[in-house]
Amino acid sequence: MKVEYINPFLTATLVVFETMLGYTLTRKEPFIKNGTKSEHEISGMIGLSGKAKGTVVLSLEKSAALKIAECMLEEKFEDLNADVTDAVGELTNMIAGHAKAQLEELQMGMSLPSVIKGKGHTVEFPRNVTPICIPFGCDWGTVVLEVGLTEVV
Amino acid sequence: MKVEYINPFLTATLVVFETMLGYTLTRKEPFIKNGTKSEHEISGMIGLSGKAKGTVVLSLEKSAALKIAECMLEEKFEDLNADVTDAVGELTNMIAGHAKAQLEELQMGMSLPSVIKGKGHTVEFPRNVTPICIPFGCDWGTVVLEVGLTEVV
Repeated sequence: MKVEYINPFLTATLVVFETMLGYTLTRKEPFIKNGTKSEHEISGMIGLSGKAKGTVVLSLEKSAALKIAECMLEEKFEDLNADVTDAVGELTNMIAGHAKAQLEELQMGMSLPSVIKGKGHTVEFPRNVTPICIPFGCDWGTVVLEVGLTEVV
Repeated sequence: MKVEYINPFLTATLVVFETMLGYTLTRKEPFIKNGTKSEHEISGMIGLSGKAKGTVVLSLEKSAALKIAECMLEEKFEDLNADVTDAVGELTNMIAGHAKAQLEELQMGMSLPSVIKGKGHTVEFPRNVTPICIPFGCDWGTVVLEVGLTEVV
């Protein structure tokens, strides 16, 4: 994955958290996800396809997902119920949409968001794709964006 | 999701299992996945976008995933390792590609396949999309294709 593709996704996450949730994430250093498998509790996923194709995965700790839903729906949640699931899918959709708009030259379309739940699940990309992991500092709990994007030749 | 979109995915799964693995799946009745959440061990996922957008999820029991990898790579496996993960991603890619070719009028592009692992994980679609669940009879273990597809207006 080209380095110049990282920034649009990093910025998109910061902007969407700021505008949709009124929350300022802290930037952390993105790194290449090489063989390491991180376990998550809830992940929003969306596919991209066009002149490049790939997948965007927003993985969250339960506590972060609950706070996100609380900010979006102005209601307190205790479990990863259907409302929280929808909020995570919608946030993933907005982040991918914002990044896609900044990568206009790749003419990408977005698939539907889906949400994976299950303590300790892992998300793996094809072996020939090197996904970038973009962690954020957030006192609600873990917030990580993983992006694997490959140009179509 | 339109009923006429189901058959291309059903046929694609049968054809890909037959040609790639030399295995004949049994047809079972597709049904609308309404609120029911099925727990899986390993799922291959791929996004589609174009005049319709959606997600294709191939969910497998561990035993089925191991046999699929064995048939594709001509090697025995005991764990859901990187080879098995890749085989599941590749099979999902082929099924979606085959179905997409039969739905040419929707001009869809495919994202990259990703593979979710984790005992008891669930995959949820957006609330406004009604995914179709296509189960297959397979003596290797559970094989289910879930497809959520919505036309872009």
